[in-house]
Amino acid sequence: MTSPYGASFPRSRKVHVEGPLGVRVPFREITLGGGEPPLRVYDTCGPSEAPGGGLPRLREPWVRSRDDVGEVERVSPEGRRRPAVRGRGPAVTQLQYARRGIVTPEMAFAAVREGVEPEFVRDEIAAGRAILPNNVNHPESEPMLIGRRFLVKVNANLGNSVVKSEIEEEVEKMRWAVRWGADTVMDLSTGRDIHETREAILRHSPVPVGTVPIYEALEKVGGRPEDLTWEVYRDTLVEQAEQGVDYFTVHAGVRLRYVPLTAKRVTGIVSRGGSILARWCLAHHAENFLYTRFGEICEILKTYDVAFSLGDGLRPGSIADANDEAQFAELDTLGELTKIAWSRDVQVMIEGPGHVPMHLVQTNVERARAVCHDAPFYTLGPLVTDVAPGYDHITSAIGAAMIGWWGTAMLCYVTPKEHLGLPDRKDVKDGVIAYRIAAHAADLAKGHPGARSRDDALSRARFAFRWEDQFDLSLDPETARAFHDETLPAPAAKGAHFCSMCGPKFCSMELTQQVRDLAAAQRLAPEEVLAAGLREKAGEFRAGGGDLYVPGRTPST
Amino acid sequence: MTSPYGASFPRSRKVHVEGPLGVRVPFREITLGGGEPPLRVYDTCGPSEAPGGGLPRLREPWVRSRDDVGEVERVSPEGRRRPAVRGRGPAVTQLQYARRGIVTPEMAFAAVREGVEPEFVRDEIAAGRAILPNNVNHPESEPMLIGRRFLVKVNANLGNSVVKSEIEEEVEKMRWAVRWGADTVMDLSTGRDIHETREAILRHSPVPVGTVPIYEALEKVGGRPEDLTWEVYRDTLVEQAEQGVDYFTVHAGVRLRYVPLTAKRVTGIVSRGGSILARWCLAHHAENFLYTRFGEICEILKTYDVAFSLGDGLRPGSIADANDEAQFAELDTLGELTKIAWSRDVQVMIEGPGHVPMHLVQTNVERARAVCHDAPFYTLGPLVTDVAPGYDHITSAIGAAMIGWWGTAMLCYVTPKEHLGLPDRKDVKDGVIAYRIAAHAADLAKGHPGARSRDDALSRARFAFRWEDQFDLSLDPETARAFHDETLPAPAAKGAHFCSMCGPKFCSMELTQQVRDLAAAQRLAPEEVLAAGLREKAGEFRAGGGDLYVPGRTPST
Repeated sequence: MTSPYGASFPRSRKVHVEGPLGVRVPFREITLGGGEPPLRVYDTCGPSEAPGGGLPRLREPWVRSRDDVGEVERVSPEGRRRPAVRGRGPAVTQLQYARRGIVTPEMAFAAVREGVEPEFVRDEIAAGRAILPNNVNHPESEPMLIGRRFLVKVNANLGNSVVKSEIEEEVEKMRWAVRWGADTVMDLSTGRDIHETREAILRHSPVPVGTVPIYEALEKVGGRPEDLTWEVYRDTLVEQAEQGVDYFTVHAGVRLRYVPLTAKRVTGIVSRGGSILARWCLAHHAENFLYTRFGEICEILKTYDVAFSLGDGLRPGSIADANDEAQFAELDTLGELTKIAWSRDVQVMIEGPGHVPMHLVQTNVERARAVCHDAPFYTLGPLVTDVAPGYDHITSAIGAAMIGWWGTAMLCYVTPKEHLGLPDRKDVKDGVIAYRIAAHAADLAKGHPGARSRDDALSRARFAFRWEDQFDLSLDPETARAFHDETLPAPAAKGAHFCSMCGPKFCSMELTQQVRDLAAAQRLAPEEVLAAGLREKAGEFRAGGGDLYVPGRTPST
Repeated sequence: MTSPYGASFPRSRKVHVEGPLGVRVPFREITLGGGEPPLRVYDTCGPSEAPGGGLPRLREPWVRSRDDVGEVERVSPEGRRRPAVRGRGPAVTQLQYARRGIVTPEMAFAAVREGVEPEFVRDEIAAGRAILPNNVNHPESEPMLIGRRFLVKVNANLGNSVVKSEIEEEVEKMRWAVRWGADTVMDLSTGRDIHETREAILRHSPVPVGTVPIYEALEKVGGRPEDLTWEVYRDTLVEQAEQGVDYFTVHAGVRLRYVPLTAKRVTGIVSRGGSILARWCLAHHAENFLYTRFGEICEILKTYDVAFSLGDGLRPGSIADANDEAQFAELDTLGELTKIAWSRDVQVMIEGPGHVPMHLVQTNVERARAVCHDAPFYTLGPLVTDVAPGYDHITSAIGAAMIGWWGTAMLCYVTPKEHLGLPDRKDVKDGVIAYRIAAHAADLAKGHPGARSRDDALSRARFAFRWEDQFDLSLDPETARAFHDETLPAPAAKGAHFCSMCGPKFCSMELTQQVRDLAAAQRLAPEEVLAAGLREKAGEFRAGGGDLYVPGRTPST
């Protein structure tokens, strides 16, 4: 059987767990040695594609079976007509179903992935504390949850295509990001072929896809923010919704009156969407049309079940600007808009910063929860210092782990190239891995059920010198194996009861095993071992003589 | 003038600040453009060496001037005799001077580095809240402070020499670590040439050097822990103290009765020193001789001013074992030993874990402070998850940043090779940079005076598109520059008002400048700008016409 995981996870296979309502939920199962049962982990990779075909349309029968949708024709820029689905009832959103007490197959599927009851999922969605981004026109995606009471998720940004030949490259980058564990991707493409790039990503993405529609609207008006109109923006929303985009970043909180609050900042407005809207507001001296037309935007989103990601256009771009008046003024407006979206049955999450020193991080998530009525929070990092361009996956993973622990539902990755250039394949992987570390650390700190099983399995493998298991349980088996083999390349070293740190015969872990064995043999509690048996054992040790240690090398005390 | 910083910091030069008691304190001064004053940053690199000679013996006149030391002869293994200094008064420790109200040149030097008053330094040392590791036989080192109220420090571990030819390699690794910002180094060498390797590192190290003397003692008894004796250990302490080691890790808290507490752990005892002592205790069924002889150890250390780093031999080696009974039992003993050391005028810091999930991190530093009477805490990470071998510089930088914020004084780095193999030059740099990020983030969060000036200078450079300044202000200018140049290699791009993220003409930062200019021109508060002037400005914008945006590429919203 070929692995859908390529060479990256050599001893993994995809398994499916049967769930309620007939759902079959994929997990990655890692084969282990030493009598350990295989370990199943959350799987973002999606199914294998048939050669030439796209992904299977997993959710299509669920959507069709609900009888509240109809088919429309959408016209691609090349003039081809393709079917798209559109709601014809009051709303086709998971929020609306959840509020009506309906557990959908989407909810059941996500519940199995999270290891919780479907009813709990329904309840969290109904309360607005979680979203299930899930456009009816993106049936290829596997349902997943973004909410504080679920596993912390990771988003990877894509999109730098300006010429046709790069479309396939962007699709490959998406596949690469989900292989390493991205839970959603955002397509931030600009320039030519923006529609086709998005289409290619959607048709091949097993995870929800987000966009920032103002980017495409801006292209349509020649790149002049002041020429943006509601009509152009509205048509762009419909176009993207019919393609299947699962969530839209909408910078509706950048109100005219907040723009001057950024004047004294060290780094002003750093959000690209925020600056487009601020420029529009200033040019027209008018209120942001995303704000004034918000109700109409809701009507479009609920027709396809596109979720809002309410953008933080005034987020801080430096430590100096963190938690300032502009940022929190916009947040207040996002709270107001959340209620409007919910009143129209549209799912909502809230975007957050950015650049925040550690002592100001917790306030961000607590304030967002309070002001935005516990809608899921989705942050970019935050970076906890500005002094390390080239390493901002690390500066931001620190803030991301903390803000995840404190209740942020999804973390937008930052790559090592942030502030400097365009991420390549290596940067995408480095960014996703750093953020999987942050998200998993947050799950552990939140006490998410089952999160620790992977840590414990890996630690048992480490203690028992099961090297292959240690590699395969890691987030990146290839790198772990390669680092080990730099010092000890011989295949026999993989079974050896030592590592290069302390050399072949002396190892700190042996001692514990001896204490444990003695306790087991005598059926004593460990506390009793010394009193009852160690004089005898002491004699054995000394009699055992001289060959317990060979000088080795050690980098740790 | 050639730079002592090599090619790593091209626009930096070493400057000296005159301080009290005639001290001249080095800083690295970064030249900036755009009318910005140069920025001075803490400098760990030390002075340039004369060709063929070692470092200048900066502290020698200060030590000699105090009249409480005498010279002894120490014999190197090759039979060469060299002078060493030894106290002949009650103690020659900075703690003793501080308690007597004396501000030493060492304290004055460190005060200037930290930007505080010498009297404040004296007070912190006298109270035991800070140490100034500073063996009288290591006059080449520049005084520095380890304490909660000072900048958070970073230690880098070295030491993997087993053959003579590698000694120079270890010295080079030390120089490399201090170039990137290591505040101290620990030489953990084992095997042959252990004495010579340490001698070479000490004579060339501008930062304090720590060791774990039990390693060398173990070599002397053929690697058999049960053959260790007090006499062998004592002679090793004296040998290393006379060479100039500044602090010793001493695992005196691994008491016989605590060893069985580790039996039920997932990863038992993972400290190498801890396991050596535990094995000795079990083999003899006797109390750890480092504990029973602790008073005698103090007598040796105070004769040279070697500081204790009280080792955590029972630290957790996995998330599962964090904050367990064994760990905290040992910590209680370290608190007891701290008081004994202080009663003998010996400086003390306390070592901490290891592997700890985020929600249990704060307890570690708070408990250490309470139990160990506010002696400085010095932790290895901690790693906040076990699932990422190959990336443990990141898993541990997360924990390190947090525990630094909460009061840990020094962070022992972890490299990407941790758990897998021996760190090479790249790993040492990656480890030091990750830990400089953690330490600086902690300084920001603690509100350390002046810490934010570097962030602010870099953010101003970023906002003003002073690319060269942005690179030079970063922790690693080489990498920042290289990442930028991958996308925009042309020299002209360094002066360009754009980056590869948003393309050449549209940039979110321009807007803020326009709002700011308008406010300044009209002498209005930003809040008044819109009301007073923006209708007019709005006209200008629209009249300005169509060339504000060229489609670019963007990886962020």
